[in-house]
Amino acid sequence: MLSKSNTKYIQSLHHKKYRDEGSTFIAEGSKCVLELLQGGHFACKQIFAMDAWMRQQEPLIRKYFSGPLQIVSDFELEKISLLSTPNQVLAVFSKQVPATYSPVAKITLVLDQLQDPGNLGTIIRIADWFGIEGIICSQHCADMYNPKVVQGTMGSLGRLNILYCNLAEWLQQYKNIPVYAAALNGQNVQTIKGTKEAILVIGNESKGISEEVMQLATQKINIPKTGAAESLNAAVAAGIILSHL
Amino acid sequence: MLSKSNTKYIQSLHHKKYRDEGSTFIAEGSKCVLELLQGGHFACKQIFAMDAWMRQQEPLIRKYFSGPLQIVSDFELEKISLLSTPNQVLAVFSKQVPATYSPVAKITLVLDQLQDPGNLGTIIRIADWFGIEGIICSQHCADMYNPKVVQGTMGSLGRLNILYCNLAEWLQQYKNIPVYAAALNGQNVQTIKGTKEAILVIGNESKGISEEVMQLATQKINIPKTGAAESLNAAVAAGIILSHL
Repeated sequence: MLSKSNTKYIQSLHHKKYRDEGSTFIAEGSKCVLELLQGGHFACKQIFAMDAWMRQQEPLIRKYFSGPLQIVSDFELEKISLLSTPNQVLAVFSKQVPATYSPVAKITLVLDQLQDPGNLGTIIRIADWFGIEGIICSQHCADMYNPKVVQGTMGSLGRLNILYCNLAEWLQQYKNIPVYAAALNGQNVQTIKGTKEAILVIGNESKGISEEVMQLATQKINIPKTGAAESLNAAVAAGIILSHL
Repeated sequence: MLSKSNTKYIQSLHHKKYRDEGSTFIAEGSKCVLELLQGGHFACKQIFAMDAWMRQQEPLIRKYFSGPLQIVSDFELEKISLLSTPNQVLAVFSKQVPATYSPVAKITLVLDQLQDPGNLGTIIRIADWFGIEGIICSQHCADMYNPKVVQGTMGSLGRLNILYCNLAEWLQQYKNIPVYAAALNGQNVQTIKGTKEAILVIGNESKGISEEVMQLATQKINIPKTGAAESLNAAVAAGIILSHL
């Protein structure tokens, strides 16, 4: 049985404040939990799972994790889960201390106030697809440890260096690296190709890139529109530009 | 006050069965409702809105709609809404009878069992950005009138011809048009450029393209992966390939 204090503790991790305090986060669902365990980037602290799942997965889990395993009922899992259909298991992991990251001789993604956790999750997955090593987020971006982000990244979360900082200050350290800003009035992305070193800035879903950051861009780039839609989803725009770089 | 029968009626439109029966669907939120009204592709049947919004928007609404306007309380709106934070207005529209569509001399998108309404909404928006005129969906795709799709398309919904049919039968009518299938083992998308006539097939989020449809493809294409992520989101893949075509 799940204790009251455990229930409260996990529910608290739905909120950034408490994730920050304890430097922990939750992951849910069989695929996501197993990928994070096997990826080995985050230390696992506790696993809560339904009986049938635990019996099936215990041999695999024990290769990666020697800590407490707790059986929960579907009713208990529902109480601690954020999914509309809870999926057998929820685990608590320790956050990673961000490594130092240098954008020299690499393609780096910079996210300026990207607010939707779903978009952030998808972007982390796209970045991992294209072999990007680092993502620099402004302090007002969605939290990378938000459960929706963790879910959306499908295990890519631990493979990238993701830093939160003041973007203008960070960019000013690397004045020799070209900074491309995704904007509606920029140069056609199809004319920019084969870059080995660049910083690509993607802005907020509705407001775009802040003025302070835009001033540090060396070039605006744009995905040419031939139809009528007002905008492209931020993650889709990131994917398209990265595929051209 | 919202009548019991109206409440029940709108709640029924959360489900495909009832949307099909009455050939109607719902749209929510100020931006979405106003865009659909002004777009003029779908006939509006009823509008339910909070008092303040209605007073502000009535002059604009009356340019496009002469039918019933109903004031609802926030509590009533919550009851009929599917949004976690209901946004001032919900409207009922009539579905459109699909126009006949020919893929000759065009780029056409074909979706094979694309199941996530969020992905379908994003793909419709991407298609509209790139000036695509038609999307052909297999019968097991998400419903284009699912409220999440309507929300995600941001007004692009009415600007495209979207048909649901048996894909294999449809493809067999156009044997002279190249059919590109997005697949993990295909040709690099960067080598395919400037096509004016093509059919691009995007498959199911986890299972990809069905065998029956794959057999009708003239070429498989792939987005080269240099990192470790297992897959790309279907909407992102569609966006990247369309940007290269």
